[in-house]
Amino acid sequence: MIKASIYGASGYAGGEILRLLLSHPKVVVAQATSRQFANEPISLIHPNLRKKTALNFSHPDDLKKCDILFVALPNGKSMYLMSKLKKLAEKIIDLGADFRLHKQSAFEHWYGYKHENPKLLSDFIYGIAELHREKIKKSACVACAGCEATVSILALYPLVKHNIIEEKIIIDAKMSSSQAGLKPSLSSHHPERAGVVRSYMPTGHRHTAEIIQELSPFNKNLDVAISATALDMVRGLLVTIHAIPKQEVTEKDIWKAYRNEYQNEPFIRIVKERQGIYRYPEPKILQGTNFCDIGFEKDKITNRLVIIAAIDNLVKGTAGQAVQAMNLMFGFPETMGLEFTGLHPI
Amino acid sequence: MIKASIYGASGYAGGEILRLLLSHPKVVVAQATSRQFANEPISLIHPNLRKKTALNFSHPDDLKKCDILFVALPNGKSMYLMSKLKKLAEKIIDLGADFRLHKQSAFEHWYGYKHENPKLLSDFIYGIAELHREKIKKSACVACAGCEATVSILALYPLVKHNIIEEKIIIDAKMSSSQAGLKPSLSSHHPERAGVVRSYMPTGHRHTAEIIQELSPFNKNLDVAISATALDMVRGLLVTIHAIPKQEVTEKDIWKAYRNEYQNEPFIRIVKERQGIYRYPEPKILQGTNFCDIGFEKDKITNRLVIIAAIDNLVKGTAGQAVQAMNLMFGFPETMGLEFTGLHPI
Amino acid sequence: MIKASIYGASGYAGGEILRLLLSHPKVVVAQATSRQFANEPISLIHPNLRKKTALNFSHPDDLKKCDILFVALPNGKSMYLMSKLKKLAEKIIDLGADFRLHKQSAFEHWYGYKHENPKLLSDFIYGIAELHREKIKKSACVACAGCEATVSILALYPLVKHNIIEEKIIIDAKMSSSQAGLKPSLSSHHPERAGVVRSYMPTGHRHTAEIIQELSPFNKNLDVAISATALDMVRGLLVTIHAIPKQEVTEKDIWKAYRNEYQNEPFIRIVKERQGIYRYPEPKILQGTNFCDIGFEKDKITNRLVIIAAIDNLVKGTAGQAVQAMNLMFGFPETMGLEFTGLHPI
Amino acid sequence: MIKASIYGASGYAGGEILRLLLSHPKVVVAQATSRQFANEPISLIHPNLRKKTALNFSHPDDLKKCDILFVALPNGKSMYLMSKLKKLAEKIIDLGADFRLHKQSAFEHWYGYKHENPKLLSDFIYGIAELHREKIKKSACVACAGCEATVSILALYPLVKHNIIEEKIIIDAKMSSSQAGLKPSLSSHHPERAGVVRSYMPTGHRHTAEIIQELSPFNKNLDVAISATALDMVRGLLVTIHAIPKQEVTEKDIWKAYRNEYQNEPFIRIVKERQGIYRYPEPKILQGTNFCDIGFEKDKITNRLVIIAAIDNLVKGTAGQAVQAMNLMFGFPETMGLEFTGLHPI
Repeated sequence: MIKASIYGASGYAGGEILRLLLSHPKVVVAQATSRQFANEPISLIHPNLRKKTALNFSHPDDLKKCDILFVALPNGKSMYLMSKLKKLAEKIIDLGADFRLHKQSAFEHWYGYKHENPKLLSDFIYGIAELHREKIKKSACVACAGCEATVSILALYPLVKHNIIEEKIIIDAKMSSSQAGLKPSLSSHHPERAGVVRSYMPTGHRHTAEIIQELSPFNKNLDVAISATALDMVRGLLVTIHAIPKQEVTEKDIWKAYRNEYQNEPFIRIVKERQGIYRYPEPKILQGTNFCDIGFEKDKITNRLVIIAAIDNLVKGTAGQAVQAMNLMFGFPETMGLEFTGLHPI
Repeated sequence: MIKASIYGASGYAGGEILRLLLSHPKVVVAQATSRQFANEPISLIHPNLRKKTALNFSHPDDLKKCDILFVALPNGKSMYLMSKLKKLAEKIIDLGADFRLHKQSAFEHWYGYKHENPKLLSDFIYGIAELHREKIKKSACVACAGCEATVSILALYPLVKHNIIEEKIIIDAKMSSSQAGLKPSLSSHHPERAGVVRSYMPTGHRHTAEIIQELSPFNKNLDVAISATALDMVRGLLVTIHAIPKQEVTEKDIWKAYRNEYQNEPFIRIVKERQGIYRYPEPKILQGTNFCDIGFEKDKITNRLVIIAAIDNLVKGTAGQAVQAMNLMFGFPETMGLEFTGLHPI
Repeated sequence: MIKASIYGASGYAGGEILRLLLSHPKVVVAQATSRQFANEPISLIHPNLRKKTALNFSHPDDLKKCDILFVALPNGKSMYLMSKLKKLAEKIIDLGADFRLHKQSAFEHWYGYKHENPKLLSDFIYGIAELHREKIKKSACVACAGCEATVSILALYPLVKHNIIEEKIIIDAKMSSSQAGLKPSLSSHHPERAGVVRSYMPTGHRHTAEIIQELSPFNKNLDVAISATALDMVRGLLVTIHAIPKQEVTEKDIWKAYRNEYQNEPFIRIVKERQGIYRYPEPKILQGTNFCDIGFEKDKITNRLVIIAAIDNLVKGTAGQAVQAMNLMFGFPETMGLEFTGLHPI
Repeated sequence: MIKASIYGASGYAGGEILRLLLSHPKVVVAQATSRQFANEPISLIHPNLRKKTALNFSHPDDLKKCDILFVALPNGKSMYLMSKLKKLAEKIIDLGADFRLHKQSAFEHWYGYKHENPKLLSDFIYGIAELHREKIKKSACVACAGCEATVSILALYPLVKHNIIEEKIIIDAKMSSSQAGLKPSLSSHHPERAGVVRSYMPTGHRHTAEIIQELSPFNKNLDVAISATALDMVRGLLVTIHAIPKQEVTEKDIWKAYRNEYQNEPFIRIVKERQGIYRYPEPKILQGTNFCDIGFEKDKITNRLVIIAAIDNLVKGTAGQAVQAMNLMFGFPETMGLEFTGLHPI
């Protein structure tokens, strides 16, 4: 059994880490911090954990040594703390954006802030196991990918690597409300937020930086653009990716690219059915699971390839990805604690 | 044409008044106040009014004389201002709670505050036209009913008046998020509020006071209890009322009571069908309308009567009721500006 | 007053026509046909029309002469009946697909059937008033556009006409359940349909044919592709259009193109705000309205233009468009009966 | 490892049994029957089980011997088959209504059919472990409770047993769409079903029979009435129970009654918080779990007790209850395979 703590456990990512770790057979949750809710029961904020844990939140100042520390803070916070936190835990998984990008300049460009601790950037491995499994196994520090980046990279990686598509890629992302976190605002106020098809970021999405970083080893000239639309759902993320297949690419080639990369992946499913009503990836049945479902359709009329991919943004897109990385870092079976199959109907 | 202004026009009730008045053939909207959004276009907050009005919000201190003033403030505010406001308008309709109850003591009991201006209480007529039409026609001041009280009173009034039911009445109210107003909070935060069946007020609902006040002339010993549950809807309110019919009461008697009181009411429909999927009142098809739909079922096994009633809380439960009262006060046709039939499907 | 009848009035398009015509000051609804529900009250199927009409459905065989006939049948039906129906009414508006395309071959290509009555194709004017106002005024026959085509054409027309964008256009359409009509199936079954982000037609959408037909006079080489995703909403349609601006095109040029074409259009609003939470078109506040809201954002990083447009698929996308055409055909004010502003919040 | 089969596995109850058994450490799923989908992959109908099982549906005629058979058929079907099915499995759990009631006459009264196989009625133990744990352990046949009955009985049992409440009990049930099963109809059609607050059974709910049967050993004169309202949710069930506490009953007495009966129950949680936004039971966070959450509030003004209880209708109300019974019948730990904690936010 290893001892895990969570720094910043009152948010949605922190709560999801707690949910997964409290059921993990090899983990004991030592501490879960929250400045605001210190000494309050965890179940006050995460009511799904009633009867699962009697733990109270700890004050961050009281954080003790542990085997692994999960850091789940708002973007721009963990870079100030990381040097200190590294002394408390041999292994660290950061769920925020601060250590995802390798280049200091990228933070200024996409996030608008100067990175406080650029020396540490190279310590962190980008947390998508499907791309960096061997490195993660040996690493002390992992930076989990953004949820939108996770699903886009997983959908595109085999196609870019196998030279299937042209460089211009458009990602039309359908997003849920949990991605914006726990803090209420008018834009998250139920009468305003319910029922929306809200084009909240037509251009300029920050996760573009991660997608380009991860795919550029296979093609340096990618031109990736994201348009994000918020829907009336709490969990889940679907991307419709519009790409242009290279000349002479056939459907078989596409299948082959995905099979080559993913046939042994426990959390990736190619979903492309001829019958039934779930013929393509559907985020609603992925809630609570660590799956990334990927499908595609090649246009018979125009030269176009549409790739559809879906995840639970809080699991494969955040906390599940982190637990998967932890499993690799400690030599546990990669799927341990992540076996939930999802519900249907839901 | 009369000149109408709205004091407190940035909230949901104020916005709904604006929507109705801007399409009313006999009304010109003079001013719509908002302290916070003074000088901003109304459509910033009420985006449905784009192209319908070019008006900006006025600062409340700049309010000028008008023929009728609608006051749409949070509870406990208008009692401080009313004496002043009455000098600005010959006729006033208050949409808040401050002048609904006739007795000063009732405010202390149900709202927990001492009434600031008890002398004015008797100036105000309770705004439900179906009960007080003649008085409203002659009045200068109307206090519109609470939304939950409106639908409950309309459902119960004929039954209490005609001595159809016993005194113990249980109202199980299904509520929407717009009732809680414009102010964001954790409880209205979309990830927390979406999908709920939230028992937010199992006992002690303040609108009980209004229901008892309005029905007590017909029976002084009513024992009314409300349990309120919040659902994942933005607009709409349905009550399931559990009552006990007096001995020997038949279904015909119930029909007769409703017909007697409501057969000429333009905004009340008795909905009790033998076929179709909308056999009982359904709030979703009432959105935007001023209807109150009422149905009932007498239990064949136990001695029980279930009454179901639905409204749009922001129209018949608030702003539509106010416009209906205004029409009476100025001698306009009672349905003027309130003809919208509702949408289906929606 | 003119006498209007609806052929096929039990579906959602038929119901919406009824809703609009029953409130139209210049129209009397004579007959509304339904084979299945002949002699049943209209409000059995369209419960929003309770108390608004006491009409029963007529059997289609009993259809009598009228001034204008609205035909609202499933695709592939009206072409068999049109010659006969034209004898019953001087003016006809068809809401189905059968007379939208000018070329017989296009039906075979996109709809997979041979057109039964190709001679009549040239009698019909395509029903979007913003493009064909003068022709509609003089026409006896109008074929209303498909909902997805309507919103896409309105969003793209000024940009194509003014040579603002390249020829490759991708339309990512977010669709609602009412578009699929009244017939239940497993795919529309609530437990399966609720909460979906269902990629039901990644390529090959039939409305492409209409979009190309309408825009090709301005550019013969357009390459238009639609990907359609069904969401958990009943009404509403939003398109996110991904286009590439021509070199040297500025944001001002885009504004100018839209203003040139639409500044006097009563039902088109350019929605592109700097503040507020409704900065771009949002279909939820368009429910029941005849507006088409259009916004755009030019990407500062990659050379890309994102256009966002929204409508109520049953109003501007179907029945409202038809009433707008009728107003033109009879010389009524173009906005008559279509003044509803929409609700907020909803 | 035991061999389990499911008779009638294509419905929602069958799918949920499959989901739970496929993750149960002591169970191998042998066969899952479906007449309609025989030889098709299970994941065609239950897409959440992709990659979890490669099993195809079996034809019911091919059903082989197994250690335990779960029967998940529409009401009125299993009574014709049970004698035959008992030869195939030593232990049987029926999820339908056919063997829930002990008295033949009750079926005629509540279900309107003559029971085909009344001799077998006494073989079946009613499946709520909290009431019949010891009997279930020794039984070969279990009839699982109806979902609405389950939550109502669990909420009421301690209060009736400890003589806390009067005999007149009103249950206001808020229901989800999965309860009506897999078969599409106009009433389940998304445009009609979405957003409803549909009073579909104001009186006469069949589950009343079960509630009275189970509680009558403690009080023979109970007068129980259910009013059921369908909401826009797929999973989940909440009851608001309106009762009258006996004179001199205090809040402490109520706590004591619940603690006496439930303090060691693994799946029952008393939820009655002073702070937070999940102060009372909330079905949305119970999705996928086997919990029954129970809360209550004693009215300070009128003499009234409101009890609120929630479950996932497909888990604790159906398939989870069945697995819990199976665990008891085979001597497995009672919570095995039912440990899922639920998601938040969702």
